[in-house]
Amino acid sequence: MASMKDHNSAGSGRIVISVDAMGGDRGPATVVAGIAHSAQRNPDIHFLLHGPRDELERLVARRKALSERCEICDASGVVQMTDKPSQVMRHGKDTSMWSALESVRAGEAKVAVSCGNTGALMALSMVRLRKLPGVNRPAIAILWPSRNPQGFNVMLDVGADIRADAQDLLQYALMGASYARNALDMPRPRVGLLNVGTEEHKGRTELHEAHALIAAHTEDGKFDFVGFVEGGDIPGARCDVIVTDGFTGNVALKTGEGTASLIGDLLRQAFAFSPLSRLASLLAYTSLRRLKKRIDPRRVNGGVFLGLNGTVVKSHGSADATGVSAAVKLAFELAKSGFGDRLAARVASAAQQAQDATGVERKKEENP
Amino acid sequence: MASMKDHNSAGSGRIVISVDAMGGDRGPATVVAGIAHSAQRNPDIHFLLHGPRDELERLVARRKALSERCEICDASGVVQMTDKPSQVMRHGKDTSMWSALESVRAGEAKVAVSCGNTGALMALSMVRLRKLPGVNRPAIAILWPSRNPQGFNVMLDVGADIRADAQDLLQYALMGASYARNALDMPRPRVGLLNVGTEEHKGRTELHEAHALIAAHTEDGKFDFVGFVEGGDIPGARCDVIVTDGFTGNVALKTGEGTASLIGDLLRQAFAFSPLSRLASLLAYTSLRRLKKRIDPRRVNGGVFLGLNGTVVKSHGSADATGVSAAVKLAFELAKSGFGDRLAARVASAAQQAQDATGVERKKEENP
Repeated sequence: MASMKDHNSAGSGRIVISVDAMGGDRGPATVVAGIAHSAQRNPDIHFLLHGPRDELERLVARRKALSERCEICDASGVVQMTDKPSQVMRHGKDTSMWSALESVRAGEAKVAVSCGNTGALMALSMVRLRKLPGVNRPAIAILWPSRNPQGFNVMLDVGADIRADAQDLLQYALMGASYARNALDMPRPRVGLLNVGTEEHKGRTELHEAHALIAAHTEDGKFDFVGFVEGGDIPGARCDVIVTDGFTGNVALKTGEGTASLIGDLLRQAFAFSPLSRLASLLAYTSLRRLKKRIDPRRVNGGVFLGLNGTVVKSHGSADATGVSAAVKLAFELAKSGFGDRLAARVASAAQQAQDATGVERKKEENP
Repeated sequence: MASMKDHNSAGSGRIVISVDAMGGDRGPATVVAGIAHSAQRNPDIHFLLHGPRDELERLVARRKALSERCEICDASGVVQMTDKPSQVMRHGKDTSMWSALESVRAGEAKVAVSCGNTGALMALSMVRLRKLPGVNRPAIAILWPSRNPQGFNVMLDVGADIRADAQDLLQYALMGASYARNALDMPRPRVGLLNVGTEEHKGRTELHEAHALIAAHTEDGKFDFVGFVEGGDIPGARCDVIVTDGFTGNVALKTGEGTASLIGDLLRQAFAFSPLSRLASLLAYTSLRRLKKRIDPRRVNGGVFLGLNGTVVKSHGSADATGVSAAVKLAFELAKSGFGDRLAARVASAAQQAQDATGVERKKEENP
């Protein structure tokens, strides 16, 4: 990812990231290790760290890289993976997740990062940060290893909402293109709409409506539209942004992860099979490490919530320190590029145009 | 696959498979090479081969294994990959696909195999073979490499119909369990219902209804129900049969295939990178071949159409001779096990029970 290079040179300005220390499968020690790693590599980054003060102070004190660059915000409650989003919305005021989002809402941080419960994080983000004007359903976008030169494709929605109508899919196209521009440095990304075939007569009705809507907004969205794409194009090179509803996107994401993980395990078994194959794995060590790095899910860790007043990066619940650090890096890049404001401007302008178009239509109908 | 062993011993009875020679991406020569390979390995198998007589006679004459074991049924028309199903249904009487299905309909063959256009094949199968009593939407089931001891999971529907209501999903569970019993030798398969989370409050309404329906039919369907599963469980070990609608299933299938293919290419690149890694790939040759064999999509080539009066195996359009031979082997095993009749009996019994239950309910309502 060209734009995700490390920033070892100081001076490009202090960026504050709000981090929820709790709720991940591996606990706050892993989160602190991850942000310490990021702090070491990037002198411009500062943290607001949310969770129980005593525990966090102990953990942070051990990390030199974090000294004077990490402020602790006390929050005693923790959102559990099993908590229902509705419960958290009603009774979650004392939680680290709530507190982490409050910092973004108050303008103290540009982006929030959490490893916690996805459903609760999305529900809280919607009530605390609120949706952008013109957005009906926010979406979660991820980066997927692909055959494209930039190495990754953007896919959304991967699970914010199980439904999406044609208007929502148009908004996903606009937001996904904006995200690709900022996260992958692509001036004019190619957008594809996920379907069961590339022929225009195939698939659900709302997809046909969405096809027409997206095709009509390529100019104001600054993207190219390649039409319908299939599951095989998610890791492919036909487009850079894949648009789908959150049900399909979530199943596709988890199927892809599961398949990659199965192949990885079988590969390890194959190399452990005989003395000869173990020798082979030693000889191929560097090449295999390069491959692993290329498709390691920890390196593209971070689903981004799009369509809110503020950016939220959802790290994998099982993320280790490397994974947390990758999520923080993504948050930093998005904050630095002013992505949130650009996305808001893009969606608002498209919504305005749609409204104007409707106005014109209405006028036409009134005075045919 | 325990039950998919080769049958080199003669005497277990002649089985006739109806094969559409046309419509695959590689043409009839590849199909003939594939069935010749099967004939060589299996003395019980006989073929009805459908397509242009002159061309097929030339191709078959070259294959000793096929002499006196392959009858050619002349059909001049070919269903193209771009043909719309509705056109083929109206004007496709002269095609090899139509002819191949007619043989099953007439009882001359137990199972039909085609590499052609999936949509057209399903549409023709529905009008020519007709749906089983009690089945609303037929489904396409595939075998997916998995972490389970049997090496594969069954997933359906992967694209017969983009919609599925709760009743359809119940039928998929019954048919999928029956298929797993016959194709994978599993007396009591575990069925999972694909969703975006395993918690019971998540997902679409029809999935909640289907959850209740499937849970109520585990005894007459002779399967265990593990409840909701996620995309990661498709190649996993939590269940043996994954039930979903044809839209989601098709996207998941193609995403998994695309991801596996990307990893395979990256692996090849990694091993070609340096002289040392090329040497490593030589040393690991046997192990890597074993891995490739394990996940080679050609070896589990064949989506099976379930829910019709007769079994249809849809081979991949791009199948080579090995792929065609794998599809024929699957067709043979299903024909030999009397799968079609067993499936019909299972579905009919469930439908009858549902009707009885409704009758009882009605009686209760009448005389409360």
